[in-house]
Amino acid sequence: MSYIRLVFTLIAFGVKKSMNSKSLNRIPLYRQARQQILERLCDGEWQVAESLPSEWELAEQLSVSQGTVRKALTELVADGVLYRQQGKGTFVAPGADDWAGMSMISPGLLSESPDRLQREFLGIARGNAPDDVSAALGLRRAAPVFRIRLLWRLRGQAVALDEVLLSAERFPALDSRWLRQLPGVWAVLQQHFGVRLRVATEQWRAVVLERDEAQLLAAVSGTPVLSHLRLAVDVNGAAVEWRQRLCLTDRLALTLQHSPA
Amino acid sequence: MSYIRLVFTLIAFGVKKSMNSKSLNRIPLYRQARQQILERLCDGEWQVAESLPSEWELAEQLSVSQGTVRKALTELVADGVLYRQQGKGTFVAPGADDWAGMSMISPGLLSESPDRLQREFLGIARGNAPDDVSAALGLRRAAPVFRIRLLWRLRGQAVALDEVLLSAERFPALDSRWLRQLPGVWAVLQQHFGVRLRVATEQWRAVVLERDEAQLLAAVSGTPVLSHLRLAVDVNGAAVEWRQRLCLTDRLALTLQHSPA
Repeated sequence: MSYIRLVFTLIAFGVKKSMNSKSLNRIPLYRQARQQILERLCDGEWQVAESLPSEWELAEQLSVSQGTVRKALTELVADGVLYRQQGKGTFVAPGADDWAGMSMISPGLLSESPDRLQREFLGIARGNAPDDVSAALGLRRAAPVFRIRLLWRLRGQAVALDEVLLSAERFPALDSRWLRQLPGVWAVLQQHFGVRLRVATEQWRAVVLERDEAQLLAAVSGTPVLSHLRLAVDVNGAAVEWRQRLCLTDRLALTLQHSPA
Repeated sequence: MSYIRLVFTLIAFGVKKSMNSKSLNRIPLYRQARQQILERLCDGEWQVAESLPSEWELAEQLSVSQGTVRKALTELVADGVLYRQQGKGTFVAPGADDWAGMSMISPGLLSESPDRLQREFLGIARGNAPDDVSAALGLRRAAPVFRIRLLWRLRGQAVALDEVLLSAERFPALDSRWLRQLPGVWAVLQQHFGVRLRVATEQWRAVVLERDEAQLLAAVSGTPVLSHLRLAVDVNGAAVEWRQRLCLTDRLALTLQHSPA
């Protein structure tokens, strides 16, 4: 009996040891802690603006040191997933919205306070990814994608048109009603799929409007417009959303104010 | 004798106290420490990539607590003036260059590794600030300004034209030789005036090339180009540089890769 128990103990110890050494070789402890916190966040355990348990409690729950938890939290703060309030704790940050901090104001007049843009959901369609999109999103050629169109208005006037492409295989359950209800694609991905995005790459060009785009923007085809291409990634750095925004910038300019930090 | 000394001590104490209470009312201690560190940095006491004294030594030198020094350093790290290396200390960060992390790569091909751009200094002239520039830089109407022009080339081909405006009253000694020698306007301001810049506002538009700009870019006037307007501020948040960049984006797109943090 004691022999069996000894063998069992040795096997259990061996398994545990090999698991530990394997994962320690691959991923540092604080990254594992970060991943576990992220998973609980995506499972909806904590809502936006809700505070997380203390470092001490999290350390207990995850069976790691408080220093490891602190390092994991610091990275999640840097990622914009969490934010800290001195003396109060660590909180869940709101996900960025689709317009992502930009505004449209008079060209050159940098002190103007911007008006709020209204978002209009134009529709969603299934299709196949063009080559540049499949390359950017890391999908196979002609992979199925959702193509979502949004129109942005300022005081009733159309100012920008978004074309958003997402993998239809990653988000098969995507429902157009969610896009009507929630404030944008990012909010839908966060609320219904637990995916939080940040912009990883941006690209700007001057292009001329093609006919169907001109119709949606109530503009003349051939008008020079700003093309703002954005690639957004999830917290693990995997590309999720490809988006091209066409902005009419004859009377308004696409503007971004940076915060000091 | 002891009476005189007592009076002197009281006066000195009174002065010190009133200075302290005045400055404490106006500026928190850590902001004062930050300002003192900044001034020593601008005086050239520490060079780029050089490490600062320890928090403990700085606290001694500035007659404040170590916590106050840490808070001042944390803000200077957030400002991008300093950077930290775990276990090694706090170092002076290199100033951002004029192109500021952007690159020009094939439109849509977001994984392409960019070529280095060559900067060509076209010239500097004195003039009066246009109204939008004087407003943006906080100058009086028609204040004297320096107007600097730079051309950016990729493999010999002109791709972008910069027009940079700076107050001629703030930088009266600005020398065109410095602009030829150093890698850009930001490097000149940092090295010769101790002014470190960061981009505070950016504005993008699609415009068409005018004749003189078209000549400099070896392009046809009327071509749609990207206008990228940037307002840069110093470490105290005061606007210093107004810059408009015109980019030819028919074959290349202006691109920015964001780091995760």
